[in-house]
Amino acid sequence: MSELSVNHLLGIRGMTRDDLELIFRTSSEFKEVLNRPIKKVPSLRDFTVANLFFENSTRTRLSFELAQKRLSADVVNFSAASSSVKKGETLVDTVNNILAMKVDMIVMRHPHPGAPHFLANKVNTTIINAGDGTHEHPTQALLDSFSIREKLGDDLRGKKIAIVGDIRHSRVAISNILALKLQGAIVRVCGPATLIPKHMASMGVEVSHDLDETLAWADVVNMLRIQLERQGDAKAIRFFPSIREYTMNFGLTHERLDRLDKELTILHPGPINRGVEISSSIADSQHSIILDQVENGVATRMAIMYLLASR
Amino acid sequence: MSELSVNHLLGIRGMTRDDLELIFRTSSEFKEVLNRPIKKVPSLRDFTVANLFFENSTRTRLSFELAQKRLSADVVNFSAASSSVKKGETLVDTVNNILAMKVDMIVMRHPHPGAPHFLANKVNTTIINAGDGTHEHPTQALLDSFSIREKLGDDLRGKKIAIVGDIRHSRVAISNILALKLQGAIVRVCGPATLIPKHMASMGVEVSHDLDETLAWADVVNMLRIQLERQGDAKAIRFFPSIREYTMNFGLTHERLDRLDKELTILHPGPINRGVEISSSIADSQHSIILDQVENGVATRMAIMYLLASR
Amino acid sequence: MSELSVNHLLGIRGMTRDDLELIFRTSSEFKEVLNRPIKKVPSLRDFTVANLFFENSTRTRLSFELAQKRLSADVVNFSAASSSVKKGETLVDTVNNILAMKVDMIVMRHPHPGAPHFLANKVNTTIINAGDGTHEHPTQALLDSFSIREKLGDDLRGKKIAIVGDIRHSRVAISNILALKLQGAIVRVCGPATLIPKHMASMGVEVSHDLDETLAWADVVNMLRIQLERQGDAKAIRFFPSIREYTMNFGLTHERLDRLDKELTILHPGPINRGVEISSSIADSQHSIILDQVENGVATRMAIMYLLASR
Repeated sequence: MSELSVNHLLGIRGMTRDDLELIFRTSSEFKEVLNRPIKKVPSLRDFTVANLFFENSTRTRLSFELAQKRLSADVVNFSAASSSVKKGETLVDTVNNILAMKVDMIVMRHPHPGAPHFLANKVNTTIINAGDGTHEHPTQALLDSFSIREKLGDDLRGKKIAIVGDIRHSRVAISNILALKLQGAIVRVCGPATLIPKHMASMGVEVSHDLDETLAWADVVNMLRIQLERQGDAKAIRFFPSIREYTMNFGLTHERLDRLDKELTILHPGPINRGVEISSSIADSQHSIILDQVENGVATRMAIMYLLASR
Repeated sequence: MSELSVNHLLGIRGMTRDDLELIFRTSSEFKEVLNRPIKKVPSLRDFTVANLFFENSTRTRLSFELAQKRLSADVVNFSAASSSVKKGETLVDTVNNILAMKVDMIVMRHPHPGAPHFLANKVNTTIINAGDGTHEHPTQALLDSFSIREKLGDDLRGKKIAIVGDIRHSRVAISNILALKLQGAIVRVCGPATLIPKHMASMGVEVSHDLDETLAWADVVNMLRIQLERQGDAKAIRFFPSIREYTMNFGLTHERLDRLDKELTILHPGPINRGVEISSSIADSQHSIILDQVENGVATRMAIMYLLASR
Repeated sequence: MSELSVNHLLGIRGMTRDDLELIFRTSSEFKEVLNRPIKKVPSLRDFTVANLFFENSTRTRLSFELAQKRLSADVVNFSAASSSVKKGETLVDTVNNILAMKVDMIVMRHPHPGAPHFLANKVNTTIINAGDGTHEHPTQALLDSFSIREKLGDDLRGKKIAIVGDIRHSRVAISNILALKLQGAIVRVCGPATLIPKHMASMGVEVSHDLDETLAWADVVNMLRIQLERQGDAKAIRFFPSIREYTMNFGLTHERLDRLDKELTILHPGPINRGVEISSSIADSQHSIILDQVENGVATRMAIMYLLASR
């Protein structure tokens, strides 16, 4: 197979196992390019991509923008802060206007779950979901799987992968679960009961509230970020008593790792709260592939944009 | 004629009929380029344009930026939000500083009427007005005329064109009136009395407060946007009792159009308030050339920048 | 010598006289390029620079960005406003993430003195300090010296240079003092006692509180900007009774200059408060080299980036 079965990258849901394999193979090739002195390829020359970010983002936006520049695409950026969104324009109108300017592809982040899917049905262009509310964040899941495979090998069947933390609000968790299951991995989520939604079982995922037991079980652990900025907000519902208690029960510390007698591969989608969900020295240890994830993000996004543009 | 009579694009005022015809001819050529697979031309290679937006803008800024990139210009963006403007620097100093960095052309939007004219006398560079307060918005008027001519033919003499809505605060209306009169069209403005300034008659323009009668008269209608964000502001003077009443009297609805027994070409400068000044289905109907306007905006702006750079 | 002795441009402190001479020679060459019709060189093709501005900036950011584009570098911009900084990420993590995306050089402005020095020890990339709190602003000092030498000749030994205004809060003053002393100039600071820190004597600098006497003494005067926005802030400590009184005692006016019977070269790092620290006509007079400073800024920054990238 040399072509994706989908016209857009809206989510892992809807993709086939073959799609994932094709993306991983292509990502490997682009990763090789990124390690050459000349990191630029002409693949998307004369191709214009608009990055529409209706939510703030640093790393994802930068990663996409670098991927676009290294593919030689022309890039225009649009952020909600300075946009017509505030003037009462509908999302479809905003996007149609941008398309009328002959933009070839749209990368969008939006606070509403399903916003990119809605658009994909309404407007005539290729759409890449860079995160839609608490729904999906497919490029993150693809780069996470790619990074795990670099460490564990390409066959993830039977491999045990734990996702730890705020599963309830995490689009990263959902997309990771879908991508990992598609590859035959065994997935477990772990966190306080208040942060794990009831529908997890229906996704074929194990649930645990015991981090030590989960670490003993797992080959790989993906530590999600605790969104401190939400906890600090008086209006937000608190899902756990205190940061300190969260860290005691669900923080990845040296003491916890030392009790294990095995190799463990550690991921984190960033930005890290050092000393909260992961201790500082572990984030920097040789078990951690956090910076590989970031590096692979550019290669994976190059692969996705290249494959979608080639259809 | 193959050269503009002006050094800057400050407004339609000051331009000749020949200038307009040259811009339209050149826009046609660039529009053809934009519909090729390779949409980029090297016309402004090694030419640097600075976009200075002292007011927020999405579509105009994006349209200019895409036009610049497709002409192969180097682009730097400057927005008031993060600027020295807040530090008490004068406009002339800000612009002179940017020019000292060897910028070849400045595209500016500014809340003060006449700001680009003032600058054009003070600093030694080519200036394009992307909207100055309630004064002029010449590139919008040029793309509007270009879009009308695509539909009605190049000779607008005797053609009846209505501009409907908030004429008082609209730089789009002023520039459109000037451009259309220059081409021999008959122009009428229509809206509530509070939104039509007294000097309209002196511009050789008909005035009406009856939308149905105006629609029966017109070949083309340009529906201006109601700036809901200003109406919502408690400190703003309200110019009509309610949005609902505005829509009843001056909204372009299906009922209104169905009563007419003729073709009507419909423009809107965007962003649209669906259900306020124009109903949703009409904005999307085959009478509407709203997305053509957006597409033509890039071609027209390429033409203007190319012609000014060639002088 | 054809190579810098430093791997980063963190401050003037740590650089040698030879480093400065090399930068000035290279800046001259780039200035010549900037005055050609084709202002672009391929020196940094396939090289990616990230501009990380944790403080607002217009002129410095634009100057760096234009310098990067004219060296044909790929540029990504990052500003604190829309960044993960707010999400509790450490500075080292932010920078390491950006580096993992294969960025070759970082230009950073940060409110904390020493932030770029701290980073240079922690992360493996070339760092250019574009201003760190009240500490240093080395590229400004280098362009200032380059501009003075264009006027006075390359040998600044024994030349008398006064820096006037808010020395206490000025990274421009510190970097200028260091750069000028390195070149053998005699440096004097002048301002109200509240705005001159005690450690000036230890830097080998003369101190004066009398502007007229200082002007009579100096060959060159560098008028610093009074940060009106800080004076207006109720929470800020006021360092002088009123703007009016500051201008009376330390403003560069025509009356003051007329009393002198000599040539004086006038610099200002911008943005200017016309009528406060410098009168409007003097800023525009032939004694002023303010716009040369801005023009030279691009050439100097091209030289610095080129030389650091060549190591």
